[in-house]
Amino acid sequence: MTASNSELPTIRLGIFGGVTVGGGIVEILTSKSELFSQLTNAKIEVRKLCVRDLNKERDFAIPEGCIVVTEYDDIMKDEDIDVVVEVMGGTTDAKDVVYKSLKAGKDVVTANKALIAAYLPEIEALMKEVNADRSSENAVEFRYEAAVCGGIPIIRSMQSDFVGDEITMISGIINGCTNFMLTAMDAKEQSYDDALAEAARLGYAEADPTLDVGGFDARSKLKILMRLAFGIDVSEDEISTKGITDLTKTDFEYAKRLGGTIKLMGVAKRKAGTNKIAAFVSPTYVKSDETLAAVCGATNAIEVISNNLLSSSYIGQGAGRFPTANSCINDIISLAKGDKTPLPFNVKNNDVQFVNDYESLFYIRIMYKDMLGITKQIGDICERNNVSIHSLLQNPISSRQDSAFAIITDKASLSSIKKVCAELDCVDWCAGSTLFMPVLHDSWTE
Amino acid sequence: MTASNSELPTIRLGIFGGVTVGGGIVEILTSKSELFSQLTNAKIEVRKLCVRDLNKERDFAIPEGCIVVTEYDDIMKDEDIDVVVEVMGGTTDAKDVVYKSLKAGKDVVTANKALIAAYLPEIEALMKEVNADRSSENAVEFRYEAAVCGGIPIIRSMQSDFVGDEITMISGIINGCTNFMLTAMDAKEQSYDDALAEAARLGYAEADPTLDVGGFDARSKLKILMRLAFGIDVSEDEISTKGITDLTKTDFEYAKRLGGTIKLMGVAKRKAGTNKIAAFVSPTYVKSDETLAAVCGATNAIEVISNNLLSSSYIGQGAGRFPTANSCINDIISLAKGDKTPLPFNVKNNDVQFVNDYESLFYIRIMYKDMLGITKQIGDICERNNVSIHSLLQNPISSRQDSAFAIITDKASLSSIKKVCAELDCVDWCAGSTLFMPVLHDSWTE
Repeated sequence: MTASNSELPTIRLGIFGGVTVGGGIVEILTSKSELFSQLTNAKIEVRKLCVRDLNKERDFAIPEGCIVVTEYDDIMKDEDIDVVVEVMGGTTDAKDVVYKSLKAGKDVVTANKALIAAYLPEIEALMKEVNADRSSENAVEFRYEAAVCGGIPIIRSMQSDFVGDEITMISGIINGCTNFMLTAMDAKEQSYDDALAEAARLGYAEADPTLDVGGFDARSKLKILMRLAFGIDVSEDEISTKGITDLTKTDFEYAKRLGGTIKLMGVAKRKAGTNKIAAFVSPTYVKSDETLAAVCGATNAIEVISNNLLSSSYIGQGAGRFPTANSCINDIISLAKGDKTPLPFNVKNNDVQFVNDYESLFYIRIMYKDMLGITKQIGDICERNNVSIHSLLQNPISSRQDSAFAIITDKASLSSIKKVCAELDCVDWCAGSTLFMPVLHDSWTE
Repeated sequence: MTASNSELPTIRLGIFGGVTVGGGIVEILTSKSELFSQLTNAKIEVRKLCVRDLNKERDFAIPEGCIVVTEYDDIMKDEDIDVVVEVMGGTTDAKDVVYKSLKAGKDVVTANKALIAAYLPEIEALMKEVNADRSSENAVEFRYEAAVCGGIPIIRSMQSDFVGDEITMISGIINGCTNFMLTAMDAKEQSYDDALAEAARLGYAEADPTLDVGGFDARSKLKILMRLAFGIDVSEDEISTKGITDLTKTDFEYAKRLGGTIKLMGVAKRKAGTNKIAAFVSPTYVKSDETLAAVCGATNAIEVISNNLLSSSYIGQGAGRFPTANSCINDIISLAKGDKTPLPFNVKNNDVQFVNDYESLFYIRIMYKDMLGITKQIGDICERNNVSIHSLLQNPISSRQDSAFAIITDKASLSSIKKVCAELDCVDWCAGSTLFMPVLHDSWTE
């Protein structure tokens, strides 16, 4: 521990992506180099930085001895590079870079959610292949803390805090853009369009905001978390997914009247006493006394329900330069210390089974043009589909155009609710798409 | 990775304390042994369990091959034991057991908050001594995840999530008993005595509840967290500490009127732009839109403010058999995997300095018998002590005996507020002790 820096072994990094996150990683490595040597008993050097445009101005200093390159092979084929850090994004070139680096025996640190969600089983198979002839000391490692919820250490938590535990449910606010929008639509009564414009202006929206507002970004994260929590590989399009595009001012008014708010949640749960895992991404009614109700703005949060720890919540920044860089740094330091994660995605559990349906209390909002006989007809449609109505709310009618009911159902299955809503959409007094969303927690207690 | 169990190296545990937590650890090790072998490439065996009374009935099965003993030396002097798990508690025998085990080259896992808070610098020196002649591969390790906030992985977080970051503030609800009581006093308008009786009945109170209600348990935890977050060793009695014993129904009424609630918080903060660390344990006014305001019952929570991650919150169980056992298991598995924590308490930072004072907005509650001239006199006392009044609240007077003002001050120092309260206590119309508490966050922004 008292060795001077020059005597320490060197760990050589090659970083792909020299703009936002890459720059953050370089800055932290430079400013903390002494501490990192003390912690890891090694010297961590950024040897090569691979960028798209050599001439682009950067807002960080290139460390001494670091070469800026534009050819992927300059890093992948460099036998001196021990660890590859992939923060370039995308699933084409990035995939190539990650796979070839692993095959070349380099440890990989990545922040690439899309890559992992799309190729999780393939990466797992590749890791097995790469490590088949290696001792556990020399095993190639794959780390991706920054890939899900940027600054929240949820991956490492799933890989270590819960090894002795059994997770029964995960529920998360795992898309910053939509949480920012929903917070503004609730607290500031902003319109959907204004909220989206502000989120985009502040850099919270993905290049294609459909991924955010359609719930697809959250779905990718949920898929990865489900593998870690339950050992199950689900293809993304099997997860029932609904975005926030259909929410209106009226829904927030009803949510407030019911004593809560609306959050876009990714939820996965083991049905009690079974090996069945259900999941959804959906706007969700959350009561105001739930921890997750207070998670505002672009903040992310995940609650894990488990047998030993009962309820554990992690709240923090889901994206951004330094939160993401910080998580990559944690992976790099952990690798440099020689810590092992023998199973990159936790053990696969072939006993559990995904069911593309779930039970919950549901909120249903119905737009209507005229009153006569409506209540009876709604009752009939619900009864026919085995949905029992718990309560019915109606705000004072301010305009004939804008009239709406809200129903809270007793516990019902998603499939029945979908049938109810489809039937309601066809009745002649219906003045707009019927919206449904699950109610957090209540729903899931058995 | 494909080796059968019999070919794997064995890691032998000796556990001190075979009642609640010890039993939980044994149960988890037994039920998860196959997974743990897969993760660690080793077989983890409980070789000896040291208990006070051999004949006491236990609610868990003693694993095959495990010997139950009563003599400490049966474990400490057993050269076959690799890892000692100390969950017996206390600071006398437990200290002896931990120190001798470390000296004998055994890794130690402990859940003992009191031991660490009292002997942190001594343990650090001992670790240096023990590891002086060892290579980093053979270094003796000391783990204590369960010692602060039971099931919340805050120690590991402080040791790994923030290595590349700079923490500027930690604030936590770090005593379950008092949070349970304050929740009941707020939501259910329970009296202090009823709330304490219920907390004791449910097992949330320490054997001596003074440690809880006086803020001393929270102070021990804050001291440990301060070392991890800021690298500073503070002696506990230097931390300004106030318990919840003086809170009345009136304070909760005013808190509600102000739009928030009261939590017993442990807070430590680096004064912006300086190397000065201030800290307190105190009932604290928390606005209802703060994440920590929603943390109810015996739940614990810690919010960390830092340069990279901005705000990170961890919410979970602070105590209990399985939450605590789960954290010990995480330490055991991490040791068995060969993960290293080269610095048991993070780097000590000799540049930072503790200041036993802090600035905040404050809430002051004043009991009075009679109105004439009171407002002017309060104004005079505040002015004389450089405390500026931001606002003054008074509920409708329901009884002459029970009349109270509440003042919110502008930013002031703790020392000035103490002087104001001492002077108020001496005026002739004062009808009871004046209570003050800081306001979370607002106070601390500079």
